[in-house]
Amino acid sequence: MDRLDHLNRHAERGTTDRDRLDALLDEQWVGTLSTVVDGLPWAVPMLFARDGDRIILHGSTGAGALREVADGAPAAFCVATVDALVVAATTFDSSANYRSAVVRGRLANLTGDEKTRVLDAFSEKLLPGRTSEVRPMTKREMAATLAMALPIEDGAWIMKAREGLPSTNEESGAERDVWTGVVPVRSGYVEPAASPWSTRTEVPASVRRLVAGR
Amino acid sequence: MDRLDHLNRHAERGTTDRDRLDALLDEQWVGTLSTVVDGLPWAVPMLFARDGDRIILHGSTGAGALREVADGAPAAFCVATVDALVVAATTFDSSANYRSAVVRGRLANLTGDEKTRVLDAFSEKLLPGRTSEVRPMTKREMAATLAMALPIEDGAWIMKAREGLPSTNEESGAERDVWTGVVPVRSGYVEPAASPWSTRTEVPASVRRLVAGR
Repeated sequence: MDRLDHLNRHAERGTTDRDRLDALLDEQWVGTLSTVVDGLPWAVPMLFARDGDRIILHGSTGAGALREVADGAPAAFCVATVDALVVAATTFDSSANYRSAVVRGRLANLTGDEKTRVLDAFSEKLLPGRTSEVRPMTKREMAATLAMALPIEDGAWIMKAREGLPSTNEESGAERDVWTGVVPVRSGYVEPAASPWSTRTEVPASVRRLVAGR
Repeated sequence: MDRLDHLNRHAERGTTDRDRLDALLDEQWVGTLSTVVDGLPWAVPMLFARDGDRIILHGSTGAGALREVADGAPAAFCVATVDALVVAATTFDSSANYRSAVVRGRLANLTGDEKTRVLDAFSEKLLPGRTSEVRPMTKREMAATLAMALPIEDGAWIMKAREGLPSTNEESGAERDVWTGVVPVRSGYVEPAASPWSTRTEVPASVRRLVAGR
């Protein structure tokens, strides 16, 4: 099977198109934050949201994970999704269609009004319209939450993608009497389930739009 | 919104159940490999397959990415999936249901018969039954492919999960007149598309089972 990492072999799979990077980041919810702790690799999956030219991460001030990633720590944030299984005439040429990005930089801790604005933006990305349906965060909730930003800077990110049909190598070129093609992956939201204790049974507009839209 | 990293705050979200780890690893296709290069974090998304007590990664001998990760390099491999959006009465309590794992260890380069067996196992994980539908890998293809293993060892992996309905904190406990619930995410394969040059139009059993099964 093919692999997701060979930009050197397949330079055409790399893209410098910032719009494509933004589209991937805006579509995905979870990525892996990597840093170095005591000389060893350290990684944690995190929800994230893009806010213009930066990736916003958040966590609890009571959690160990984000405290490891001090203000100014070098970080790499990786987002990847598989769009299809690519079935070739050989296992060697089989592959996956995918889109992935790695953004490198140093994390900055956000405070004050910027933190408030960014945390609202974070909520809005995950469920657009929700912040107008519920009360604002309280000061206590705000104090319990860390917000960090990783800048998206030219030359410090890489995006790779494979799309389309299987390729063939010389050795498999003769293998025409084998079915080849792609098997697309689809994902989306399904019907929401209400909490049994909720006295309001009407599904809010934010959730209805979310389910309808994907 | 909640975050994926606070095992310290939510110790109940951690699991030491190896079966649950294996189920997550067997279900997912792509993870993020993190290591340290020149003192900086280095991350790359990769297809993977679990083979018993290890995670198998592969790449091209011509690719730069895996060559960075020398035999014996310390690594962390992270896999994460979002199962549902969790919509609480406040943005602070809103969250995602997820399952994630980080496996730490040192990579080992595989060779000889073990490499052959493991690469077939890799192909079989992505598309069960496919290796019996196509010819075996050639020696040239084998020589062009790196296979590496990351052991899954007790005490060197962590799995976290959130499931179920929204939680409420003291401050949001009074907010009962707001809809809360979960919006599940579903993903699966859809109808395969054949390569136009393929002379065999019948979709093979491996692909039919894959599409039917998820």
